[in-house]
Amino acid sequence: MTPPVIILVRPQLGENIGLAARAMANFGLSELRLSCPRDLWPNPSAILASASASQVINKAQVYYDTDASMADLHYVFAATVRPRRMEKSVFIPSEAVGQTLPERWGILFGPENAGLSNEEISKANALIHIPTSPLFGSLNLSHAVAICCYEWGRLLSLPPHSCKNRSSEEASKLDVSLLLDHLEQALEESGFFLPAHKKEKMVWNLRSVFQRARLTQQEVRTLRGAVRALKGTS
Amino acid sequence: MTPPVIILVRPQLGENIGLAARAMANFGLSELRLSCPRDLWPNPSAILASASASQVINKAQVYYDTDASMADLHYVFAATVRPRRMEKSVFIPSEAVGQTLPERWGILFGPENAGLSNEEISKANALIHIPTSPLFGSLNLSHAVAICCYEWGRLLSLPPHSCKNRSSEEASKLDVSLLLDHLEQALEESGFFLPAHKKEKMVWNLRSVFQRARLTQQEVRTLRGAVRALKGTS
Repeated sequence: MTPPVIILVRPQLGENIGLAARAMANFGLSELRLSCPRDLWPNPSAILASASASQVINKAQVYYDTDASMADLHYVFAATVRPRRMEKSVFIPSEAVGQTLPERWGILFGPENAGLSNEEISKANALIHIPTSPLFGSLNLSHAVAICCYEWGRLLSLPPHSCKNRSSEEASKLDVSLLLDHLEQALEESGFFLPAHKKEKMVWNLRSVFQRARLTQQEVRTLRGAVRALKGTS
Repeated sequence: MTPPVIILVRPQLGENIGLAARAMANFGLSELRLSCPRDLWPNPSAILASASASQVINKAQVYYDTDASMADLHYVFAATVRPRRMEKSVFIPSEAVGQTLPERWGILFGPENAGLSNEEISKANALIHIPTSPLFGSLNLSHAVAICCYEWGRLLSLPPHSCKNRSSEEASKLDVSLLLDHLEQALEESGFFLPAHKKEKMVWNLRSVFQRARLTQQEVRTLRGAVRALKGTS
């Protein structure tokens, strides 16, 4: 069992980045990624707030594209506060970390003001929802990270679970993303996305199907071959 | 079951007081007490950090004596990071909130720099210990409060269950089977199943992807449309 990679998408406040890094160190997580942070990196207020969790904060990787920030991961949860109308499984944190997960996995957290976009969420395999009071749902970003890290730490002190055997390695997010790009382009050329204003929703729906299926590398190859064959370009 | 009173003993940073109040509101707690806060109260940075958890922060009570801050409570946990040599029961947060407790109970949290004194701890009924990495045990005060509040909230919603956020009805086995027949026939016509002796294995692989995805009726329609479009027969 490996701990998740924590990806903060468009984080605004250095303090929250630093406090998230500190919470990660508290519970044995080490890999922090920042996708399009608002402020310049390295950010002195993040370093100050990390309270010497230097092995996390100093190794944080910055990406200028959220797809790139998760390209090498094989399973990604998106943390959401508000329910979203999407065809994805929703887990509370204790259930999420208890899933049978591939070695490289991560959790996406959205920015303080607005959370993740629907497009970002559509690229995740499943959702993590931290249940909060109906009267005051607005969680601080670093608290959301800390609660997920805490649940990971809590899991480690439980007896180890058996894990499922899969005959082929699980596909990376990049493999799946390339497959979906290929499928979308083929469908675009075939005139599938009509009327045009419905395209975005149709794309999300298709993406959700394949994200949910947790494809293996072999399945990605098979599906790409199938798209080529159907298009008559194999 | 009533939620605990949260008592911050000698808190130093207004931000942490505000973030603790916010976490309390997130999980349905409302009673915050401050024993000998370092800075004048009301503290503007605490109010700012509370992010409008005004029903908690505006009602926070200030005490100049920790004994007085817990005088009306019938059971008090002291939160500690370091183990203490004391003859007291130690609970992790999930166990602590699950105890049979009197109606008026609380949790004491010490200051950022040093935690609670041994004398303060000696006055508590039991200890709460949040397990952390042996390499980096220093928890942010507001995170410690948030984790205890989160466990309280989790207890209220027990037993945990995952829910599927699905807006369309799950497809029947027949719907999925017809989709797969359609896909296979289209692929057959496109010359996909070559060499022929591998066809059976390829079909199984494709079927397992779509069975695993647990498609909705809407998704089955979308996928049938996609196959038609790719074949140029839509």
